[in-house]
Amino acid sequence: MDRPVEPGHFSACEARLDKHIAGRCSVDFPVAVVLPAGGSGERTGLLTPKQFCTFLNRPLISYTIQTFERVPWIQSIVVVVAKESLDLMMDIIHRFHHRNVLVVHGGSTRHRSIFNGVRALSEGEGGTDRVKPKVVIIHDAVRPFVEEDFLLKITMAAKEQGAAGAIRPLVSTVIATTLEGYLDHSLERAMYRASEMPQGFIYDVIYQAYQRCSESDFEFGTECLHLALQYCGTNAKLIEGPPTLWKVTYKRDLAAAESVVKETLSQSACVVTGGSAQATELANALQRSMSALDMEVDVISDLMGDDAKSLSKEWNFIRVSVNSSCFSEVGKMLSALEEADRALLHPVVIIWVYLNVSEDGLSASEPMGGEPAAMMELATGAKLGNILVYGIQLHHSKEATLWGRSVEKVAQMSCALIRDRSPALTGQLLQA
Amino acid sequence: MDRPVEPGHFSACEARLDKHIAGRCSVDFPVAVVLPAGGSGERTGLLTPKQFCTFLNRPLISYTIQTFERVPWIQSIVVVVAKESLDLMMDIIHRFHHRNVLVVHGGSTRHRSIFNGVRALSEGEGGTDRVKPKVVIIHDAVRPFVEEDFLLKITMAAKEQGAAGAIRPLVSTVIATTLEGYLDHSLERAMYRASEMPQGFIYDVIYQAYQRCSESDFEFGTECLHLALQYCGTNAKLIEGPPTLWKVTYKRDLAAAESVVKETLSQSACVVTGGSAQATELANALQRSMSALDMEVDVISDLMGDDAKSLSKEWNFIRVSVNSSCFSEVGKMLSALEEADRALLHPVVIIWVYLNVSEDGLSASEPMGGEPAAMMELATGAKLGNILVYGIQLHHSKEATLWGRSVEKVAQMSCALIRDRSPALTGQLLQA
Repeated sequence: MDRPVEPGHFSACEARLDKHIAGRCSVDFPVAVVLPAGGSGERTGLLTPKQFCTFLNRPLISYTIQTFERVPWIQSIVVVVAKESLDLMMDIIHRFHHRNVLVVHGGSTRHRSIFNGVRALSEGEGGTDRVKPKVVIIHDAVRPFVEEDFLLKITMAAKEQGAAGAIRPLVSTVIATTLEGYLDHSLERAMYRASEMPQGFIYDVIYQAYQRCSESDFEFGTECLHLALQYCGTNAKLIEGPPTLWKVTYKRDLAAAESVVKETLSQSACVVTGGSAQATELANALQRSMSALDMEVDVISDLMGDDAKSLSKEWNFIRVSVNSSCFSEVGKMLSALEEADRALLHPVVIIWVYLNVSEDGLSASEPMGGEPAAMMELATGAKLGNILVYGIQLHHSKEATLWGRSVEKVAQMSCALIRDRSPALTGQLLQA
Repeated sequence: MDRPVEPGHFSACEARLDKHIAGRCSVDFPVAVVLPAGGSGERTGLLTPKQFCTFLNRPLISYTIQTFERVPWIQSIVVVVAKESLDLMMDIIHRFHHRNVLVVHGGSTRHRSIFNGVRALSEGEGGTDRVKPKVVIIHDAVRPFVEEDFLLKITMAAKEQGAAGAIRPLVSTVIATTLEGYLDHSLERAMYRASEMPQGFIYDVIYQAYQRCSESDFEFGTECLHLALQYCGTNAKLIEGPPTLWKVTYKRDLAAAESVVKETLSQSACVVTGGSAQATELANALQRSMSALDMEVDVISDLMGDDAKSLSKEWNFIRVSVNSSCFSEVGKMLSALEEADRALLHPVVIIWVYLNVSEDGLSASEPMGGEPAAMMELATGAKLGNILVYGIQLHHSKEATLWGRSVEKVAQMSCALIRDRSPALTGQLLQA
């Protein structure tokens, strides 16, 4: 599978269509996910619990849900939230068209919440004909970037061993402290690991572990793997996970998560030329300049026929017009994207590049007439649908150095607009 | 002291001027810092070692050095680098005017590198009259955000106890694994801590610990605190540090560090009106709108007299002009900032707001004449000096709703330009 390394979950549509995956990886048993999302997020230093913090117009928990939705062999997702977040959670599910998601109330501690989620999977809550899963994956709402490959490893190991969990090397040395706050001893790093999420369990193992465990476990316990060992004698298989499993804990982690998503959305762009020779020349020059800036560029003449698939694949479009102040091509592109619901989960960028070609060479100071206002109006409407439209104007020059400099400028600005995805700058007509 | 919570080191100038701090906190003995910076940065997934990765035009290690430079009671900083990074490091010190920094070669392991650094402090390397410090702080080159308060705590505790180290609560449960990769047991989280940096030592303690320790310690040891305990019987005082002590480890951490710096630079702006009534009216309206967007705005008429101190305090300026296409005010501001070397460490933003007032109400489509080209030229020059100049044009309207909408737009765009600090968009004249 040709997926970006980090995060893996952007190939959502492709993965779901790719039905043979389920066969290939031989998950021929029902798998469900429990996402505890009841935390208060004290450590982010923000008022909103971190799972509900928003970047690029979407709350963190929706990214995590999407990660599991893309996996064709996962049947259902249970999100466990605090009572006061129930309406918010239902609204998120509705707004971002999440499917197969069951929302249940959390308990007073993490373990009680997880048990509520696990129980809901066999009780047919919500009036559905729920099949009790063979394996249940427990994850965190605040770890949005887990990849399908790794979920598969955890699931298969859980099925075989009864329990499996992700581990990571320790980043810091772990030390034991005396009661008075002095160093007692430091642990030998090589012998220990950080226990992370996801963890997988045979359904009956985790269910029984929770039924048998004590009030003190419910109150103070931190490790599901530990309960499975203590109460069911199930020794968990530990699997080293990638660094992308990291947990959004502090405010800075939200910025890091946003940057990961932005980077993934900004790896490539599709330039649509409309077929004219001058537009194609510019598009080819842009392709060279932008690939030097680490952006892969596809040049196509329109979005018809085979090239229509770019609409469902690409997050960034550049539309070149020559001497034409008419926005109908951009408008058509907008309609097609809206119809395909393309900007539901991520903001899509369209950059309209207006190439001004005149014979007298005096075009540089020519006024643009009504374009700026029309451009702004178009962009204002598009932004409501999560599509960010920007404009760049450049003048054709027969002088190679000048022309090269203009193209370079368009390339730099396009890359910056795509990477920054700034909503406040939509509708602007920039000059190259 | 009125400092931003995270990171503390932006009050550099203030802190250095504030000489009484040294008295107040009673650090009346010499203190030095050793920064091991020899790591290869494998975990970032980048070719450049992470301490040399750049954001906002400056390598990470320079941010860390700056953090220590701002502390008036720290006498010298030793940076320990791999041989192949020596030239790069000298160039960074030169480029960003770092002072009191001694660069020494690293050894083959972390402990050997730290010992080289510690030794250099007493040997008068580099031909200087170096005073052997009483306390030496050991930190990481890739933890740029340590605050002075915390350094003080570590230093005082080290002086009293012989050794002191920063700790943080464990983010993940720590588990012991069996040889076969199964869960052996999990540690009780409350009894353990992550050992972080900075750590402080009485010079003779750390020096002797290194002189007495074994080859195996040099080769495989991770914890300086442990060596002090084992070889000098010095039991380190452990002090809980803030989350800002975190270590830039993965690529996403660089994005997080950049966002922390950008946020700190973007907390406030200074609007300069030139004194005209219409400019002042706009400035006051911007102040209201931008403070609703969490940006504190100061309105002043010029940068003379008392208000000149804004030049040395502020990272963001908005210059309002009314009906004037002349850039001389912006030019003067640029010269003053350049003269004060203000953009040496962080990019400074200047937004030129051009208010177009006409009686006939027809100004909306009026061409701007030569402004866009002049603006671009000015900005291109300024960018070489790390000053980012953007323009926003708006038209005065007597209609309150329209006017309010324009002001709101200027506020939103100004906040976005200040927060994004995009070099590719300088010189653009945006429309509100």
